[in-house]
Amino acid sequence: MLNLARPDVLSRLQRGVSEVFPHNPDAKKSDENLWQWVQEINRPLRVKLGIDPTGAEVHLGHSIVLRKLRAFQDAGHTAVLIMGNFTAQIGDPTGKSEVRPQLSAEQVAANVASYLDQVRPILDFATPGRLEICYNATWLESLNLSKIGQLLATMTVGQMLAKEGFAERYHQGQPVYLHEFLYPLMQGYDSVAIQSDLELGGTDQKFNIAVGRDLQRHFQLPPQFGLLMPILPGTDGVQKMSKSLGNYVGLGEDAISMYSKLEKVPDAVIDQYFELLTNLPLEQLPADPRQKQKLLAKEVVTQYHGEEIAHQTQAELEAIVLSGVSQNSELIPEFSLGAISLPVKFFYILGLTPICTNSSEARRQIQGGGVRLDGEKITNVDWQIQAIEDLLGKVVQVGKKKFIRFTP
Amino acid sequence: MLNLARPDVLSRLQRGVSEVFPHNPDAKKSDENLWQWVQEINRPLRVKLGIDPTGAEVHLGHSIVLRKLRAFQDAGHTAVLIMGNFTAQIGDPTGKSEVRPQLSAEQVAANVASYLDQVRPILDFATPGRLEICYNATWLESLNLSKIGQLLATMTVGQMLAKEGFAERYHQGQPVYLHEFLYPLMQGYDSVAIQSDLELGGTDQKFNIAVGRDLQRHFQLPPQFGLLMPILPGTDGVQKMSKSLGNYVGLGEDAISMYSKLEKVPDAVIDQYFELLTNLPLEQLPADPRQKQKLLAKEVVTQYHGEEIAHQTQAELEAIVLSGVSQNSELIPEFSLGAISLPVKFFYILGLTPICTNSSEARRQIQGGGVRLDGEKITNVDWQIQAIEDLLGKVVQVGKKKFIRFTP
Repeated sequence: MLNLARPDVLSRLQRGVSEVFPHNPDAKKSDENLWQWVQEINRPLRVKLGIDPTGAEVHLGHSIVLRKLRAFQDAGHTAVLIMGNFTAQIGDPTGKSEVRPQLSAEQVAANVASYLDQVRPILDFATPGRLEICYNATWLESLNLSKIGQLLATMTVGQMLAKEGFAERYHQGQPVYLHEFLYPLMQGYDSVAIQSDLELGGTDQKFNIAVGRDLQRHFQLPPQFGLLMPILPGTDGVQKMSKSLGNYVGLGEDAISMYSKLEKVPDAVIDQYFELLTNLPLEQLPADPRQKQKLLAKEVVTQYHGEEIAHQTQAELEAIVLSGVSQNSELIPEFSLGAISLPVKFFYILGLTPICTNSSEARRQIQGGGVRLDGEKITNVDWQIQAIEDLLGKVVQVGKKKFIRFTP
Repeated sequence: MLNLARPDVLSRLQRGVSEVFPHNPDAKKSDENLWQWVQEINRPLRVKLGIDPTGAEVHLGHSIVLRKLRAFQDAGHTAVLIMGNFTAQIGDPTGKSEVRPQLSAEQVAANVASYLDQVRPILDFATPGRLEICYNATWLESLNLSKIGQLLATMTVGQMLAKEGFAERYHQGQPVYLHEFLYPLMQGYDSVAIQSDLELGGTDQKFNIAVGRDLQRHFQLPPQFGLLMPILPGTDGVQKMSKSLGNYVGLGEDAISMYSKLEKVPDAVIDQYFELLTNLPLEQLPADPRQKQKLLAKEVVTQYHGEEIAHQTQAELEAIVLSGVSQNSELIPEFSLGAISLPVKFFYILGLTPICTNSSEARRQIQGGGVRLDGEKITNVDWQIQAIEDLLGKVVQVGKKKFIRFTP
């Protein structure tokens, strides 16, 4: 069942890993050396990944640990996805945290569905025994004060305040609320509940994964390994990829948008993108920077949209750059006019489409001469749309590479 | 119903109080001035006192808040005794704390019974509406993680670490375990559950009582007042009264033992004893220090054993000092020989009685010539008791004032 006899399987598991802990490369005991254990063990490992179903769009930064999880699935192990539905429902009771809003059960269910939809291209949902999806309310909801006291008793204030994030805030005199100490413990208790052998996470998860080890020991279970992956820089090549910084590529983006973002990834970070987001052999990458960018873009688009669309997208976008808009491309995303009450000014409609952030930007783009309809520049900012037929089937273009086709 | 029209009632409530908070003596609003509120309100206040049923012997140090609670009962208010049975049953999960052993439900029930037995002379158990006895497991047992998260979210790490006890330990690098933060919150939540108007405690309870105020506000209840009583110095006049320091007077002690400890209370603290342990007018105490000690001893013994026995005890002990042991006194405590297997050396039996701490001390006392049987000094340390008749009905005396009569 396990595929680890093949050397490429192990090297795929190890690719791009930032840290494994505990790690004693000389250890005879496989409980201190994950790679040795992985090669010796004759049962599937339970590989945990915790998900906050807060409804955030999943992007390539998140895909790194998911791709690693897939590598473990392909090697015959069991991915255990833990949906933090309990954590999301209690949220942050102070209401002060933007990252922890309190969500209703319905919102959480919708977010989970949307999450699974977005990560479907990455994980193996089909092979029996390769994926478990759990909800942490199952075990957290029934914890009582006595059990919670036990969890809290495994840690000291000093240990908790040593955690990145808490330490700085505490020493700068910013409030650290006591319930915040529960989150690492809840995540750690998830490892107890599912009897995790290995937990994956970004490098910012080391503390929480270590808490999981402590709690497993407390409950007489063998402690899990931790496997940390690097944090992906955004398409600006500078800051961590994040939706709020606008330097991200969402897994659900259409092929054109994904391709055009990725073909601009800066030289400084492109090797890291190849290592973390593809399985291509790093020593065989093209030397020419432009070729490298196109290869990255095509490879990643292939993962999410398939090879044919990736090929078509690349061809389309190269043609556009050479000859302007190709109105007949089936790849141009569509925007339905159905919900819009007419008459209304054109810039207002443009502001509602995904290619402009809002109607002010739409006005500015028209004023700057950057907006074309079926290839003709729009000059009248106040152009009023009287009937849906004025736009139906036409392609509007903003700047060089953003297109939308209007549909009924 | 409320007796506050009488000025002596208010002055008894105020007697010996160390601090009331919040306290704004000029406040028109009675929620900032307890004494004004107490005089205006036309319903009984709910006056909370929390009890740890850990099985510790109740002593005069503990009696101070209980006596204050009685004063509130006598003024028409409701004493709400909260038995911390939940807290005692979870104990300290680390097992590191000697003051918080984990107790079984049966042990807790036995401790509660013994506690109530000991405090029976102090509180009014009889008048309807004057006493409620609650068990905090009633509301704490059913708290789930979500609610506990809410409780924790009302406080910051900085606030908790400012608490006496935590602050020193944390800054000295000693571990403060996270579950320790639960105790003040549990005590505080008790105030929410019983809708306390006023909580009594020693001066070391200010933090916990303030947490109760915070939690009541969080749950949209009017916050309780705190009333703090001083900590009683022990009979050594130096350290806090405590069983482990041996400077205590237990509420369950026999009259002779109680009297002889109290008639030696040092001058430096005797006024405080009168203020906190009696209702006698302080300005009418005798000037002579010896008379003052005797008055204190007789007054306190009266509270726990009644006036007749107090009178008899005083007479007995004065007679003993004048003329040696009075064997016929009915006040000499008894010690049953029933459980002892003979033959055995006398010092071994003596070590089992309450007048010697152990058999080594018994040996030493005999060697030092401090032990008499029916008035005759015992000189043979190795004296072997062959038959129960050697001791039956006789009075053994250790030092000047410790007596035991042997019974079958």
